[in-house]
Amino acid sequence: MIDSYLKKTEDALRKLFDEKRPLYPERLFSAMEYSVFSSGKRVRPYLMLLSADFVDVSSEKILPLAVSLELIHNYSLIHDDLPCMDDDDFRRGKTSCHKAFGEAIALLAGDALLNLAYENLFEAVKTDPDLITAASYLAKCAGAEGMIGGQAMEFSIDAFDETLITELCMKKTGALICAAALCPAFVCADREKFNALGTFASAIGLCFQLKDDLLDENKSEPKSYLGVTGKEHTADMVAKLGKIAFKALEPFENADNLRNLTEFLLNRTK
Amino acid sequence: MIDSYLKKTEDALRKLFDEKRPLYPERLFSAMEYSVFSSGKRVRPYLMLLSADFVDVSSEKILPLAVSLELIHNYSLIHDDLPCMDDDDFRRGKTSCHKAFGEAIALLAGDALLNLAYENLFEAVKTDPDLITAASYLAKCAGAEGMIGGQAMEFSIDAFDETLITELCMKKTGALICAAALCPAFVCADREKFNALGTFASAIGLCFQLKDDLLDENKSEPKSYLGVTGKEHTADMVAKLGKIAFKALEPFENADNLRNLTEFLLNRTK
Repeated sequence: MIDSYLKKTEDALRKLFDEKRPLYPERLFSAMEYSVFSSGKRVRPYLMLLSADFVDVSSEKILPLAVSLELIHNYSLIHDDLPCMDDDDFRRGKTSCHKAFGEAIALLAGDALLNLAYENLFEAVKTDPDLITAASYLAKCAGAEGMIGGQAMEFSIDAFDETLITELCMKKTGALICAAALCPAFVCADREKFNALGTFASAIGLCFQLKDDLLDENKSEPKSYLGVTGKEHTADMVAKLGKIAFKALEPFENADNLRNLTEFLLNRTK
Repeated sequence: MIDSYLKKTEDALRKLFDEKRPLYPERLFSAMEYSVFSSGKRVRPYLMLLSADFVDVSSEKILPLAVSLELIHNYSLIHDDLPCMDDDDFRRGKTSCHKAFGEAIALLAGDALLNLAYENLFEAVKTDPDLITAASYLAKCAGAEGMIGGQAMEFSIDAFDETLITELCMKKTGALICAAALCPAFVCADREKFNALGTFASAIGLCFQLKDDLLDENKSEPKSYLGVTGKEHTADMVAKLGKIAFKALEPFENADNLRNLTEFLLNRTK
């Protein structure tokens, strides 16, 4: 990973939180901060910055989108962990938000992060109207056509076949990965790079979830890709999707950073 | 109430939902629709349309903001009703969303409505950049500086005095009322009307909640204005705030619709 890109994201998140601290109720702020600054890997904003680089958009220009994307990802984790959803007591090696702050504050901290993500985008769009289309695409990826739609499938469908579970994964996990890779291309890209990033993003978005399934295989998750299609098929698909991702980038010399990230995601062990 | 304004809001909400129906998971969509089309009074979008009229902004221009405001209001009701929050089984005379669809889908329907509110705004801003500042203000009112901040105070403070409970009410209920009244003034208003609407909105925002307290007096709510300051003081404040609201509008001849709405809110019996 390129440290300077990770640092830019971290600094921008910290700056936003420092600005908001005096304006928010203390306990709510603490719950939001607890969740966002908890050793998350920042894969999504990192991918967005690499993708921006690939299409010649500066990090500074894309940073508000990267920050908002990470806030959206973190709100979704808080809500996912709630007892009425996955009921997880732990997240990233520490107690989950509702275990630390109670369910009401955790629910509200999630709501507040989602809201802050968009408030932050509107502030950015005020001074940089170039970002509007990308912001609109991010909202679509986060909502009921994207991530929330995937979460809802999990709680409203009982019997999954491969097609349905693939759709669930592409929405629940893939949609925000697609937002990360494609938002910069909405700001500035030629058609060729836009299309390449589209294919690349769909492939690694799904691949990312399937790799998670494989790493998590001890957990029994009937509503997962692995649970529905089996370990061998899942491993095959990870390899195939990786190939699709690399193929999409093949024509481009300046895609080494994206290739390296893909390697990292394919070979990670946690 | 002016029927044509209510109809514009209703038609715009219906149009948006009809567009989204085929794109969302069925059960999630049903939960969103169940909550949004359940005989809500549409006070907030109605106020926004009247306020737009007052500052000579057309209904057509302000309608996307009015729609998003109503979506935000409805998401907040779904989350407020959840067991970990107010635990209400009924809303507007029918079972609350989580009683009808289960907690997970209700939580996600709320998330999806909040997200859709912003997606809808970005779509609007794409074709009408005039709306950006108002959209940004709406996001601030909805978030942890506004409504969510008020909700969080309820669940993180034990002992309220009059100052604290006033702040809670101004945020939890007042912030979205302020957004309704002031957003149009961000699109187009002279300084004089902007200031008048600011005072007017703060007064009726708080007044609206206090009137609710008085109408609800059988419910024992220790964390309400009435619970903290007593019935007589609350009634006094409603009268005072009403006077402040009328006084703010006094210099303006074309504020009759806003005055009528204020009368209606002050004298309503449910």
